[in-house]
Amino acid sequence: MKRKHNVLVLGAAGFIGRNLVEELCRDRSYSVTAFDLVPGPLRELDGRGPTFVQGNFLVESDLERAFRGKPYDTVVHLVSTTLPAGSPQPEMIYDIESNLVSTLRLLGLMRKYGARNIVFASSGGTVYGVPEPACRRRPIPETHPTNPICSHGIIKLAIEKYLHLHHYLYGLNYLVLRISNPYGEGHSSAVQGLINVALWRALRGETLTVWGDGKVVRDFIYIGDCVKAIKALIDKGVVNTVLNVGSGTGMSVNGALSLVRRVAGGLKVKRDHFRKFDVKRAVLDVSRLKALVPFKPISLLQGVKNTRSWLLKSARASAKRS
Amino acid sequence: MKRKHNVLVLGAAGFIGRNLVEELCRDRSYSVTAFDLVPGPLRELDGRGPTFVQGNFLVESDLERAFRGKPYDTVVHLVSTTLPAGSPQPEMIYDIESNLVSTLRLLGLMRKYGARNIVFASSGGTVYGVPEPACRRRPIPETHPTNPICSHGIIKLAIEKYLHLHHYLYGLNYLVLRISNPYGEGHSSAVQGLINVALWRALRGETLTVWGDGKVVRDFIYIGDCVKAIKALIDKGVVNTVLNVGSGTGMSVNGALSLVRRVAGGLKVKRDHFRKFDVKRAVLDVSRLKALVPFKPISLLQGVKNTRSWLLKSARASAKRS
Repeated sequence: MKRKHNVLVLGAAGFIGRNLVEELCRDRSYSVTAFDLVPGPLRELDGRGPTFVQGNFLVESDLERAFRGKPYDTVVHLVSTTLPAGSPQPEMIYDIESNLVSTLRLLGLMRKYGARNIVFASSGGTVYGVPEPACRRRPIPETHPTNPICSHGIIKLAIEKYLHLHHYLYGLNYLVLRISNPYGEGHSSAVQGLINVALWRALRGETLTVWGDGKVVRDFIYIGDCVKAIKALIDKGVVNTVLNVGSGTGMSVNGALSLVRRVAGGLKVKRDHFRKFDVKRAVLDVSRLKALVPFKPISLLQGVKNTRSWLLKSARASAKRS
Repeated sequence: MKRKHNVLVLGAAGFIGRNLVEELCRDRSYSVTAFDLVPGPLRELDGRGPTFVQGNFLVESDLERAFRGKPYDTVVHLVSTTLPAGSPQPEMIYDIESNLVSTLRLLGLMRKYGARNIVFASSGGTVYGVPEPACRRRPIPETHPTNPICSHGIIKLAIEKYLHLHHYLYGLNYLVLRISNPYGEGHSSAVQGLINVALWRALRGETLTVWGDGKVVRDFIYIGDCVKAIKALIDKGVVNTVLNVGSGTGMSVNGALSLVRRVAGGLKVKRDHFRKFDVKRAVLDVSRLKALVPFKPISLLQGVKNTRSWLLKSARASAKRS
């Protein structure tokens, strides 16, 4: 019998985490360990595979407990303690001390326990900063300069550099995924993720606050497409590269909201001031990804419909429970 | 009477610091505050101008004391708690917690006290990492990819990104100087700075340890040229750019040692293993610098001769004192 591919997913109860864990668990060749503060949505996967380890990524002894259980082939690092927002000074320092220092500790544990591969969720929406003139209309390739205009992006970038360094010095294999704006089933944040938050507000008849005039252009990726791509890259053993993971298509916030309005049958919007740390346009060039694995993202309209169905189903299930 | 340009130099007793303080103090239009753990060599400048503030850059209250004294126009940040070396994990974390976090605190103090300009000594020898194929023979321009192969370089780069962010968010002006390998008068480290250390060993008849075969190529810049360039950039008010500061000329370690041998009349060398974090070639393209300020570096031979004279004079002075 072929030995299973042991994967440790950090941040497994988060939006990308729960979807990726589910995707990996469908494939019997993977043995998945899910690490997070609380199992949360992972409970729904009961019986379908993941071993849950409860712990805080910021506490080294918690993390080490996860490593003691099993020799991992691949660690998927999806944890972030901060959002891409206009952090004042103390939050920037927290960003450094939590995300960056804890990731260095993780790399130390990987070396100690012989885990050879790490997949890291970087941020396609923030690492590039303001697009160069040549990319104001075209998608941004991975070779674009990286001058983030928020602390979150700087820390993601610094982690990328430490992964490269650990590959160079110690032979650790990394796969950096600069993910755009995922939306879809399993999303639960009430503050981040425009499409999910907008759909949720629309279905409840609530008002959505939009920062600025809604003309900023984003790259929205359906979570199903996102985790399928990540799994395909792990399946194929793609390592030591940096890849954009997005739809490759730009859509203005106003355009996305029209779709939501159409699918949900209405949406009330309140405008607020433009936030300086929001870049005007962030659309990813995904040709490098497409050259490596099959990748055919679904349309935004289809994705929004899928998300609506899931939201309605979740609402019914939670009404039944209460 | 024209108001003086108030400059705060952090790391003022270090190699670049003491030379820059001296250079600035020669110009009566500057009023210089020198901040460091100990005044050390700055004592020699007594009566010629700098106000000394004793303190630890890592201690915020110490740093704040320096800001309370005076409204600064420009802060020159030359502090580094680590060397470009193969730091193991705990040292990488120290690098983050000391250099990066303390620099964020400095930026907070600059905003609080209204200091508008910062000049930061980054590292031309480490931020670029392994040169791209196109730069294996040519000097490296500022636009070259930045994938450092030591933690020191990653932190310098992260600081550069936070400076850019503070410019974008708060209008702070930065000047990033990616300095190559300075040598010359006023250098006192016994472990860093090949030319000074080699000359010192040669003059004392001691043996120098060289890592690897000596074929690695470096860009050595005479400290006098380096601080003149920094002052010229401050004079001219050059801001919000990243500049290489080097000689622009490559010289192998073996070549530099031959020069030292010639000037000092002999040098014993012991070879040790190659260090993985040493890039094979790091020569800086300084055309951007040359386009901004007059910059005509002296020859390496002349610089080595000057350094030898200074070393002999210092040795005589210290013999007289004891």
